[in-house]
Amino acid sequence: MSVSELPESDPGPDFAADVFERACPSREVIHTVTGRWGALALVALGEGPYRFSALRRRVDGVSERMLSQNLQALERSGFVHREVLEAIPPKVEYSLTPRGEQVAAHLQSLIDLVESQMPEILTDQQAYDRR
Amino acid sequence: MSVSELPESDPGPDFAADVFERACPSREVIHTVTGRWGALALVALGEGPYRFSALRRRVDGVSERMLSQNLQALERSGFVHREVLEAIPPKVEYSLTPRGEQVAAHLQSLIDLVESQMPEILTDQQAYDRR
Repeated sequence: MSVSELPESDPGPDFAADVFERACPSREVIHTVTGRWGALALVALGEGPYRFSALRRRVDGVSERMLSQNLQALERSGFVHREVLEAIPPKVEYSLTPRGEQVAAHLQSLIDLVESQMPEILTDQQAYDRR
Repeated sequence: MSVSELPESDPGPDFAADVFERACPSREVIHTVTGRWGALALVALGEGPYRFSALRRRVDGVSERMLSQNLQALERSGFVHREVLEAIPPKVEYSLTPRGEQVAAHLQSLIDLVESQMPEILTDQQAYDRR
């Protein structure tokens, strides 16, 4: 039996996460916050709480199903808080947790960077396509 | 004809990118840099230049095809520089452009944040799953 075949011990609470290891659970969490719809939902909620239908309008192009799945994954990992408001019919409001706010600020900064460079990026894309 | 039905003029070089508009090309660029393999490739290249096969080992779990597609998209938008080194057989080396370095630093910071909170995130996930 080679070393690589030895059974792994339980990681325990002090394990060091490493997104470069394919089995590390951090990889899926990163994907939850940077995925196509998860990232936009987080950044939108950085503007303030949203009800589902308003959030869906803000994240232009997302289907009900995809938004719902992404919000559930974000809630499961503690980035988003889901609150059922007493009303007839009941309303559901989504907001960021403190952890979600930290991540949303990072994503907003990344989006600002890319948006600000879009003219140059489009020029580079056109030059690449002409090669 | 309402205002919203008026034909849009060409965006021109001074258009303002808005990732929340579904037709804005910035949305696809964000997806290129935050996608499952694009983000890891950028952060890996933040450590220094890599040849293809070494980069593939670093980004544990990526297929040749997916890494190749992602590097091509990153090169097209000016985040990654691809250099063919004279050798027998020829070697291809990938490195970050200045734009790629800026984005990789943002991604590294986001990954550091998530990795540092993984113990709490795993606890939250378990609590959610028990509900």
